[in-house]
Amino acid sequence: MAAQTKPVLHGYFRSSCSWRVRIAFALKGIEFEQVPVNLIKDGGQQLTEQYKALNPMQQVPAVEIDGITLSQSLAVIQYIDETRPGPRLLPGDPKARAQVRMISDLIASGVQPLQNLYVLQKIGAEKLQWAQHFIDRGFQALEPILKQTSGKYCVGDEISMADICLVPQVYNAERFKVDLRQYPTIKRLNKTLLEIEAFKVSHPSQQPDTPADLRA
Amino acid sequence: MAAQTKPVLHGYFRSSCSWRVRIAFALKGIEFEQVPVNLIKDGGQQLTEQYKALNPMQQVPAVEIDGITLSQSLAVIQYIDETRPGPRLLPGDPKARAQVRMISDLIASGVQPLQNLYVLQKIGAEKLQWAQHFIDRGFQALEPILKQTSGKYCVGDEISMADICLVPQVYNAERFKVDLRQYPTIKRLNKTLLEIEAFKVSHPSQQPDTPADLRA
Repeated sequence: MAAQTKPVLHGYFRSSCSWRVRIAFALKGIEFEQVPVNLIKDGGQQLTEQYKALNPMQQVPAVEIDGITLSQSLAVIQYIDETRPGPRLLPGDPKARAQVRMISDLIASGVQPLQNLYVLQKIGAEKLQWAQHFIDRGFQALEPILKQTSGKYCVGDEISMADICLVPQVYNAERFKVDLRQYPTIKRLNKTLLEIEAFKVSHPSQQPDTPADLRA
Repeated sequence: MAAQTKPVLHGYFRSSCSWRVRIAFALKGIEFEQVPVNLIKDGGQQLTEQYKALNPMQQVPAVEIDGITLSQSLAVIQYIDETRPGPRLLPGDPKARAQVRMISDLIASGVQPLQNLYVLQKIGAEKLQWAQHFIDRGFQALEPILKQTSGKYCVGDEISMADICLVPQVYNAERFKVDLRQYPTIKRLNKTLLEIEAFKVSHPSQQPDTPADLRA
């Protein structure tokens, strides 16, 4: 195998989109470097001109890989899947692939963007209720979908991009004190997935930039 | 070729996510049926129990195809691309595919969800400024990306899912009176794309549910 430069993940320990990419690297067994981008410190390190050159949206993650720089976590994950060996992150069957993408996009377009740091800063005082509202709305849709599609994991019995999206979103739900008792399927899947090594090593409590008081 | 049931698109003439799916069908030359879901009338027909069974997120579009029901426009578009002949909607090269997905997701996760009807209803009186802010923020990131990736279209010289996402988002920008002069690449691509038949026939001004006063 040719010597290759390791991919570089510019991310933040608590960013759910950064966590998605970390899970994908871990599932594939890909070594990567992490460059922490602290979203809080110095008014937000993602706002520097230096970082803007990596991701003009001034969000994490940004990934340098194979000579290109990619942002948008699902684009990164699918690129990794299409270019790297190891367990596939999308199933082979087109209908199952579509279900994986539907679930992933429900979270990545329908929930996460509405409760991310930037939006909550714009919302101000009502931010906790706002975040809870949009996570609940998404989970109320996700629960019946997952009841139909899931086996051991979100779609059947193979881990996929849908699982990669689910776990970090549940983590956010817990941060925002969403009552998860209404979502037994989501809870079950999350619990199962959190026992898997790739989800453990990539967890926000285990990263190089995790503050000491948040380490598990 | 076996007789197949036509796909059914549950959508709304002015929904940018419905328009994305209509463009994909048109580019592929796929005949489909449309069932209008009026997002305004009767307090919103997407909120009925009947529609909720099709898409638990109570958003358009929902597409019945090959015996399954899919929501999330990019999942639908990629399913169509993977199962139907005709011009491909994602390029063959993995890096170009990743760029197409990055641009598509920047719009589908980074812009559209923040200015859709449901969110603007929650925002209330400030909704125009809110929508403008998030579209501008997205376009400020998109412009330098497209300057790098574009040829005749968003990524090189082949029409792709990125173009399918761009045009409806520019339509929304115009509705919300965003000043597009700052975005010459976006403007150029949008103009080129709007001259293509598949973008014309799928346009919000041309749909079965377009009100008479909005017909072009």
